[in-house]
Amino acid sequence: MTADIDPFYAISISGLAQRLKAEGRQVIHMEFGQPSTGAPKAAIARAHEVLDAEAMGYWESAPLKARICRHYAEAYGVTVEPQQITLTCGASPALVLALSATFNPGDVIAMARPGYVAYRNSVKALHMVPLEIECGAESRYQLTADMLAKAEPAPAGVILASPANPTGTVIPGSELEAIARVCRERGIRIISDEIYHGLSYAERTHSMLEFEPNAIVVNSFSKYFSMAGWRLGWLLVPRAEASQAVAYMGALFLTAPSLAQHAALVAMDSRDELEGHLATYRRNRELLLEALPALGLEKIAPPDGAFYIWADVGRYTDDSLSFCKQLLQDTGVATAPGIDFDPVEGRRFIRMSFAVSTPEIEQAIRLMVPWFQARAAKAA
Amino acid sequence: MTADIDPFYAISISGLAQRLKAEGRQVIHMEFGQPSTGAPKAAIARAHEVLDAEAMGYWESAPLKARICRHYAEAYGVTVEPQQITLTCGASPALVLALSATFNPGDVIAMARPGYVAYRNSVKALHMVPLEIECGAESRYQLTADMLAKAEPAPAGVILASPANPTGTVIPGSELEAIARVCRERGIRIISDEIYHGLSYAERTHSMLEFEPNAIVVNSFSKYFSMAGWRLGWLLVPRAEASQAVAYMGALFLTAPSLAQHAALVAMDSRDELEGHLATYRRNRELLLEALPALGLEKIAPPDGAFYIWADVGRYTDDSLSFCKQLLQDTGVATAPGIDFDPVEGRRFIRMSFAVSTPEIEQAIRLMVPWFQARAAKAA
Repeated sequence: MTADIDPFYAISISGLAQRLKAEGRQVIHMEFGQPSTGAPKAAIARAHEVLDAEAMGYWESAPLKARICRHYAEAYGVTVEPQQITLTCGASPALVLALSATFNPGDVIAMARPGYVAYRNSVKALHMVPLEIECGAESRYQLTADMLAKAEPAPAGVILASPANPTGTVIPGSELEAIARVCRERGIRIISDEIYHGLSYAERTHSMLEFEPNAIVVNSFSKYFSMAGWRLGWLLVPRAEASQAVAYMGALFLTAPSLAQHAALVAMDSRDELEGHLATYRRNRELLLEALPALGLEKIAPPDGAFYIWADVGRYTDDSLSFCKQLLQDTGVATAPGIDFDPVEGRRFIRMSFAVSTPEIEQAIRLMVPWFQARAAKAA
Repeated sequence: MTADIDPFYAISISGLAQRLKAEGRQVIHMEFGQPSTGAPKAAIARAHEVLDAEAMGYWESAPLKARICRHYAEAYGVTVEPQQITLTCGASPALVLALSATFNPGDVIAMARPGYVAYRNSVKALHMVPLEIECGAESRYQLTADMLAKAEPAPAGVILASPANPTGTVIPGSELEAIARVCRERGIRIISDEIYHGLSYAERTHSMLEFEPNAIVVNSFSKYFSMAGWRLGWLLVPRAEASQAVAYMGALFLTAPSLAQHAALVAMDSRDELEGHLATYRRNRELLLEALPALGLEKIAPPDGAFYIWADVGRYTDDSLSFCKQLLQDTGVATAPGIDFDPVEGRRFIRMSFAVSTPEIEQAIRLMVPWFQARAAKAA
């Protein structure tokens, strides 16, 4: 038997949303973790140029790798070399690459619960063993050095995510440093998923590379750079593992999309436009946080980064999938059921993405408040 | 220890080619298996439109899946349903998806030797066991029903490729039918890589689905549709395995590139332009076949399809990598060393791709003839 993998339940919500739209209903898409904006204007202009100028064969952009290296120097003060970077078709295959090139079937990989559904499922699909460590509100739904020190036996690896999906919480630098120390002592390899970097609302997010140069880092152009459907990400490995990563990339995936590589190089210099998106998310986040009491949702994770609210809806339901479907059916607001992110506690959580426009967030709040209040009245 | 995977040696040839170009040398790229042409004009026009019109989030094109189904009906007379199709970032991840969703670590997967390097390496990376069956000129370098009947114990799966890389040879329909029968009897799951379909110079190529509805099929827009760098392919699985494929896709890869899906839909209706490329390859193939005696290369596989010549250069060398490097260095013609495709016999083979323009093929022949003749004189 191959691994038994759950589907993304958010996809069934999205399917329902599409059907409602086909019926002429207005839908606000807060179910998926993607910007509603497109790629930066200059990146699109570059794509137009390349479309007319190049045949676009299999290709790996040396300038983009060099630009990513400059980004690590500027954003984190760490030095990395182009050969350490493998360009991939998004963060998902970068994670598959990291796992398959580093671990063996049967290896135990620790991760936070709640966490991104693909961590658990990719690990299972590769016949490794997910060790989902329950992380509650007291650790901001994040793994801590202490948890990793206590896990017996020591897992072979750990996947960290800061800012995290579905919670948006950030691991402070001091804790990352402590985690790095524990992992060094116990021989736990770190995969740091930094896909939400650039999207933070408090202090800057630290790269794990600042504390552990041997960390494996996954990142992507899908979130901050607003290029989800372009499918471009990268894997960063220590120099000693670079040739292994290249060989695995060639075997498993060949190359990343050529046009996206051209566009991404330009996107990396489109700071003003991208910071504009961040300002929108910041405003949306504030509006949602202000509205939560009216929704009766007091128990949430502090969304220091990313574009999610992870809300405890336990006072209303213990079946988050039905809850999300009913909310969508009644109001046109699509959200993701918690069971995608936490197979144990997720029945009483939902995830709301606020990577939409501010008018959409305002409209979503207007639509949700009476719906939640009617439920509260019924529950009382 | 994770799997030990060889790099693509053709990449080192390509690296040398890039250095020569940087020095101002003219290079003819016959080392990679990709069209030198771009996507069809109408597909590029559609891409321009979509770039300006859509934000391009994560997306799966229902119209493209439906169009692919129509293609199976028209080209092969077989009925498949959209739910059987998973759109992927090229054929490589489609193969990873097929292998990981179907087999377990330790399972033995049969394949022809010579064969595409990623078959062996993907199987190894996923901790399965490649069973490379030596296929000589007498079977046109292809697996036969007889070989699969004799393999003891029966492998869990087999990867078929017709037309094949690196040889371009085609398995006739009658043999595919016999293979299907043997595999049914012995419980061997078939993965049929049909990436070179549409590129044939003799009779039409048959899909394995004509003979085995439970075959798993891999295909892509990279070859016939001339969209290599767009990274779009598909996996086709039996209906009973469709939801498993969707779940694995979500876990391992999420979605395929959005723009490529829009463009591919239009490319599928750009027959005239694509048949024009085929006419070019047909002419190139004839020119190369005519020139082979002058190169002293009489021992080749019959290239009934794809765009490769697999040539025995054993009279000149037993080190195909050095041979390809020297040929490139001296003439500017880049070819792929046989060791990428056959770890045992590949030291005395090279693969030439003729998916370039006809003037380039003519120039390549002009440059190669004296070089090969000088070698022949030395060897004599």
